[in-house]
Amino acid sequence: MKLILVGYGAMTKRVAALAEDKGYSIAGVITPMEEKQCPYPLFTSFNDDLPEADVFIDFSHPDLTKEMLQSAYDRPMIIATTGEKDTLVKLMNEKAKSAPVFFSANMSYGVHIVTQLLEYIAPLMNDYDIEMIEKHHNQKIDAPSGTLIKLLDAIKENGRKDTTEVYDRSQTTTKRDKKEIGISTIRGGTIVGEHEVLFAGGDEVISIKHTAQSKDIFANGALNVAEKLIKKNNGFYTYNNLGV
Amino acid sequence: MKLILVGYGAMTKRVAALAEDKGYSIAGVITPMEEKQCPYPLFTSFNDDLPEADVFIDFSHPDLTKEMLQSAYDRPMIIATTGEKDTLVKLMNEKAKSAPVFFSANMSYGVHIVTQLLEYIAPLMNDYDIEMIEKHHNQKIDAPSGTLIKLLDAIKENGRKDTTEVYDRSQTTTKRDKKEIGISTIRGGTIVGEHEVLFAGGDEVISIKHTAQSKDIFANGALNVAEKLIKKNNGFYTYNNLGV
Amino acid sequence: MKLILVGYGAMTKRVAALAEDKGYSIAGVITPMEEKQCPYPLFTSFNDDLPEADVFIDFSHPDLTKEMLQSAYDRPMIIATTGEKDTLVKLMNEKAKSAPVFFSANMSYGVHIVTQLLEYIAPLMNDYDIEMIEKHHNQKIDAPSGTLIKLLDAIKENGRKDTTEVYDRSQTTTKRDKKEIGISTIRGGTIVGEHEVLFAGGDEVISIKHTAQSKDIFANGALNVAEKLIKKNNGFYTYNNLGV
Amino acid sequence: MKLILVGYGAMTKRVAALAEDKGYSIAGVITPMEEKQCPYPLFTSFNDDLPEADVFIDFSHPDLTKEMLQSAYDRPMIIATTGEKDTLVKLMNEKAKSAPVFFSANMSYGVHIVTQLLEYIAPLMNDYDIEMIEKHHNQKIDAPSGTLIKLLDAIKENGRKDTTEVYDRSQTTTKRDKKEIGISTIRGGTIVGEHEVLFAGGDEVISIKHTAQSKDIFANGALNVAEKLIKKNNGFYTYNNLGV
Repeated sequence: MKLILVGYGAMTKRVAALAEDKGYSIAGVITPMEEKQCPYPLFTSFNDDLPEADVFIDFSHPDLTKEMLQSAYDRPMIIATTGEKDTLVKLMNEKAKSAPVFFSANMSYGVHIVTQLLEYIAPLMNDYDIEMIEKHHNQKIDAPSGTLIKLLDAIKENGRKDTTEVYDRSQTTTKRDKKEIGISTIRGGTIVGEHEVLFAGGDEVISIKHTAQSKDIFANGALNVAEKLIKKNNGFYTYNNLGV
Repeated sequence: MKLILVGYGAMTKRVAALAEDKGYSIAGVITPMEEKQCPYPLFTSFNDDLPEADVFIDFSHPDLTKEMLQSAYDRPMIIATTGEKDTLVKLMNEKAKSAPVFFSANMSYGVHIVTQLLEYIAPLMNDYDIEMIEKHHNQKIDAPSGTLIKLLDAIKENGRKDTTEVYDRSQTTTKRDKKEIGISTIRGGTIVGEHEVLFAGGDEVISIKHTAQSKDIFANGALNVAEKLIKKNNGFYTYNNLGV
Repeated sequence: MKLILVGYGAMTKRVAALAEDKGYSIAGVITPMEEKQCPYPLFTSFNDDLPEADVFIDFSHPDLTKEMLQSAYDRPMIIATTGEKDTLVKLMNEKAKSAPVFFSANMSYGVHIVTQLLEYIAPLMNDYDIEMIEKHHNQKIDAPSGTLIKLLDAIKENGRKDTTEVYDRSQTTTKRDKKEIGISTIRGGTIVGEHEVLFAGGDEVISIKHTAQSKDIFANGALNVAEKLIKKNNGFYTYNNLGV
Repeated sequence: MKLILVGYGAMTKRVAALAEDKGYSIAGVITPMEEKQCPYPLFTSFNDDLPEADVFIDFSHPDLTKEMLQSAYDRPMIIATTGEKDTLVKLMNEKAKSAPVFFSANMSYGVHIVTQLLEYIAPLMNDYDIEMIEKHHNQKIDAPSGTLIKLLDAIKENGRKDTTEVYDRSQTTTKRDKKEIGISTIRGGTIVGEHEVLFAGGDEVISIKHTAQSKDIFANGALNVAEKLIKKNNGFYTYNNLGV
């Protein structure tokens, strides 16, 4: 498989390294930034005469993604860009007429599966108390994590619309309300990322937990999608319709 | 709700105690055994003139269950008997023509949900290694637990038919085969019951875990089913079609 | 072993039940309250002519405990009363001249051991971030739990005096400070009690965790202490000097 | 700090990378192997005229370690070599007369702490059932792990001498014997390493758990020791007497 990588940030560099480990080649990198130490052919825009490639993988930002989607190129495209979602999805649907296009704001297959599990289970657990816990390293400044919010949304949109998030119980002395979802944020050391959802009922607890060991789950997720996407017909794909 | 309890073993006694806590009454207990300390009206067979009741709850054994299913009584019936499954299911389907009949070999709602999660997720996790762990108290003589085997079956019947269970890795020095499912059995203290399934892939692990705090989950499961079953039309029900 | 139980609340009733399971007898119960359904000989004060007994077990309140310590009785005494600690300890030291006296505000042996582990480890983990998590049922109104505070004190008094507790990270966007101890409180279902302390450093995490399955750990703790205390010389004992 | 690295295997390469991240310099590498891609000054033996350095760090094999200990060099030495322990310790004690010498077969500080916790707690837990669980990636061929065996030894040497390890409970239908230690081995995905010891008693469980996120814990452990060792007097050191 020959790849063209869009953007050249930390995640793209991991995609490049892991792709080479798997025996794939990097036909080129597209970035408007000046890059002094890039070992691959560099291009500054989609107007350039790009080399042949089987798939474009894009971990960049909306501006560059828009340029790609509006370019003449009709290669399979994997897009992990966050921001300007509505605009991008509209352009992706346009491009999907002439190429297979895959989009996910979280390229981890495991996080996708956990999201699906929560969508499936949430409507069945009305009598259970839900609590969510996430753990990350001590350099992370936002809390709770974006992934936790994604999982919370999956629960709320599936039968728990009227819940309230509770972040601190030390200041109150009232019993837990049935409609609360408690959210706990642990920060310490170099923990890469853990997300757990508890369903606690009478005499039993069900836990669904995702543990990430490195950020490579996002880069590898994109490469695994690439292997499938290049065999697909034109169309707009997400993890929900890509197939196993 | 007025209950008739079939059998009078440890689980039925908990059903009785928890039912009374909830304000339900025990109209009678049916058991062929002599019971000296039973505080409820005792009947030895379904030929007796039983009192009126809203539902029969049966944690007994196949002989008594067969007698109930072949009797003239047409009350809603909840059956948790294990053994002679094919015969019983056939009789339950007969009875279901004239009464709502519910059957589950494991009355815990949580275990049912975990089973469903595994059925859902197993076909999506072909690239992940599966490992199962169960923990129970130090008096339990069978290993692995019946619940673990039920969960294992749910996995095997959903895309992992060709797997082999591995119970001991200390005697071999070969790498894990993709088709193994490792099964670990922990025994200690008074642990009531924990079951965990791990899906371990590249740089990420998904865990689904059920923790039981007491055996009341089975008795309470039956009572919760009773509350729903008495409003149902005649038919054969399991957790899959009872509704939330 | 013949026991005299001081007070007759929920915990004392469990002590009585578990003591009888072990083959011990309850020589009497001392309580100023009127008790209609107590199956044991009742006494209203230490002025009564109490029956012979091997040990007194006291899960009552400071008033009754004071009365016991100031009485003429010289039996081995196990005291789990909370409140008025300074006064009680002074009286216990007096009584310890003529009887073996054991005191612990938390009779669980496991919680005692975890406290000791934290006292031991805390001074060795200066480079690690500490986070504490406790889980309890949805009827508990205080947060964090008394046991968590006991464990926190053990850490602070052993090399972490200058730490600050942090209960909510969702309102700030600053990095974790080295001197923080994050405290998370989970509430749900009927969880009896879990306490976990994490030490998170570079690429590794150490966790110390205590899981309680029922409140019997307190009653059983007292009975196990009783078995040892009746063989001891006069003196003041805690878990730290009672011996295994 | 200027380092001389002994051996040039995978672990030494990580020591070099992490040392440079911390601003230390690599004065040289000693290896009898031909190394084509080593960016540091290479030496084949301790007979060479080695550059000045503050400390030697040795993740090699007994032959090279012996050569170092028998050489004329008197620098602080950190030795993580496994094998021929008796011979090496004897030589280390000789060298310790003229240099500070540190030895540990497992350079992870966290594993050292967990070992200490187990040594401390084991004699206090005679009434508790012990179970050990380790998890590693699917390429590991030995089971249980060397670290688990080290932790098991710490338990056995501290009050549990007469225990028997049990690796498989699926073939027997007898109750757990008090003197068993159950050992479970989980293999899956790319799990770096988890070790957990459970103490399960009546209605409570204590768990002590170590989770490794990368093998850098060994390289970083050596560098942290180096920072302390260069300030020490001559003598033989381990984690037990190095100080925090």
